[in-house]
Amino acid sequence: MTLPMVVPAAGLPARVRIHEVGARDGLQNEKTTVPTEIKAEFVRRLADAGLTTIEATSFVHPKWVPQLADAERLFPQVAELPVDLPVLVPNERGLDRALALGASRVAVFASATESFAKANLNRTMDEALAMFEPVVARAKARRVHVRGYLSMCFGDPWEGAVPVPQVVRVCRALLDMGCDELSLGDTIGVATPGHVTALLTELDVPVEKVGVHFHDTYGQALANTLAALQHGVTTVDASAGGLGGCPYAKSATGNLATEDLVWMLQGLGIDTGVDLGRLVATSAWMAEQLGRPSPSRTVRALSHQEQ
Amino acid sequence: MTLPMVVPAAGLPARVRIHEVGARDGLQNEKTTVPTEIKAEFVRRLADAGLTTIEATSFVHPKWVPQLADAERLFPQVAELPVDLPVLVPNERGLDRALALGASRVAVFASATESFAKANLNRTMDEALAMFEPVVARAKARRVHVRGYLSMCFGDPWEGAVPVPQVVRVCRALLDMGCDELSLGDTIGVATPGHVTALLTELDVPVEKVGVHFHDTYGQALANTLAALQHGVTTVDASAGGLGGCPYAKSATGNLATEDLVWMLQGLGIDTGVDLGRLVATSAWMAEQLGRPSPSRTVRALSHQEQ
Repeated sequence: MTLPMVVPAAGLPARVRIHEVGARDGLQNEKTTVPTEIKAEFVRRLADAGLTTIEATSFVHPKWVPQLADAERLFPQVAELPVDLPVLVPNERGLDRALALGASRVAVFASATESFAKANLNRTMDEALAMFEPVVARAKARRVHVRGYLSMCFGDPWEGAVPVPQVVRVCRALLDMGCDELSLGDTIGVATPGHVTALLTELDVPVEKVGVHFHDTYGQALANTLAALQHGVTTVDASAGGLGGCPYAKSATGNLATEDLVWMLQGLGIDTGVDLGRLVATSAWMAEQLGRPSPSRTVRALSHQEQ
Repeated sequence: MTLPMVVPAAGLPARVRIHEVGARDGLQNEKTTVPTEIKAEFVRRLADAGLTTIEATSFVHPKWVPQLADAERLFPQVAELPVDLPVLVPNERGLDRALALGASRVAVFASATESFAKANLNRTMDEALAMFEPVVARAKARRVHVRGYLSMCFGDPWEGAVPVPQVVRVCRALLDMGCDELSLGDTIGVATPGHVTALLTELDVPVEKVGVHFHDTYGQALANTLAALQHGVTTVDASAGGLGGCPYAKSATGNLATEDLVWMLQGLGIDTGVDLGRLVATSAWMAEQLGRPSPSRTVRALSHQEQ
């Protein structure tokens, strides 16, 4: 298999933890609903490819995310894997469901803008934060690790560019209520590298508490990731095969493909623990289940080679 | 139209010259042969969108590049545009044809590897350089600007990773024979940012003499461009709409899409002179002519918005 030549660059971390979101953020945005057994096999294959943090599913009410309505059946099928398996919880009811299954990592999801808080959570930003407060407190009391997703950190479809201080305010609120880490989301993919650096600089929290979550809507995800790495960030969200944003649909908002990320990190000599060949085979297999080609350029390039 | 928030980053150039290759490198690799009048209209629209360097066509023998066999008819239709219009010339015969039409900028194309020199030029690397020497000398005697393309600067499908000193040797040969600028090509798209920085550092020639030419086969083109900009490079090759590398074909070797590049540069506050809306409209129009969607993510995202 073709691999990039390894040439490190100055000022980058030695190791990056990939927070794999394909099974959750990816599949919840695919039109095809995948059978539970296939989802479990997907998570197993991702773990086998060396990913160590695999977001498994969501305990949002099935009415809102029907693709992941099988969370109670899926989670026990993968719970014994030797990897971290965070799950999304929107509120206390979701937390109860996750805790009942023994989840040791959960994630809440806040918004950096009023418009998206209203659209996604039907609440103001502050009402949403108030809703998360007991979720985080109860999780922490159970020694459960809590991630705080923050959507629309760079731009918002209704409000346009999002001011950095506004994002920083919500980040601090999430950390103050006890979140162990944040994931800064460019939900509509509009960010560019200077904006990424500006937010990280202004945020000024220890880099181990900050992950970045870029979408490739305008092709910027990997350049933005490079800027984040240069700032010292060591946690990067990505979706195997680029699941979750079909480039053929009008609503294309593709997640950064894990394979494209791994290609860059491998070339830079940054350790991820991932076996790129196994990961590509996993995404090619999942693309078959979904009946459409993977939007990941690396998956396409390497799958073609192997044919 | 959605635009990125402008947030400059430290250490980047204030202005970048985009060397637009869609009409040449793009169209010569498309399956569909485009009528001469459409090509001329494409070049005119690119100029109207603010691009100032538009590679217009190629004087390679039509047997090898049938898509551009109309160079003699095309060039006079665009020659009066107030932009630079370099043309590709493979040898003295090609130079004669270009000079006869009044071309003031030409480009030769060398290889950084023996395997590709053999495959593309049917010569050894040194034989190819010897072939270019009189081309460059005669062009310079006529005060014609000469660009030297160098293919396979980072990896080669036969030889794998390409050693940096080998690339530097050919670069120096091209500069020594009189080339005004180089274009360092990642023809198979395997480079990662550290490799880009290493080559530019080792090459150690004034940045105004160096352009970069990245392909997006593994999704790395824009991250590599960012690394080149951080090194001071101010000339970046790109192809409007990502023409030239159909992502649906097995041989996908997509050029960096000009729109994805402009999105990043605009967000970074780097002046290009390009009107992104006009450029997207041009690429959407050309995609219609070719009967397939543009592979540029920015073109897709912005075209969808406008529907």
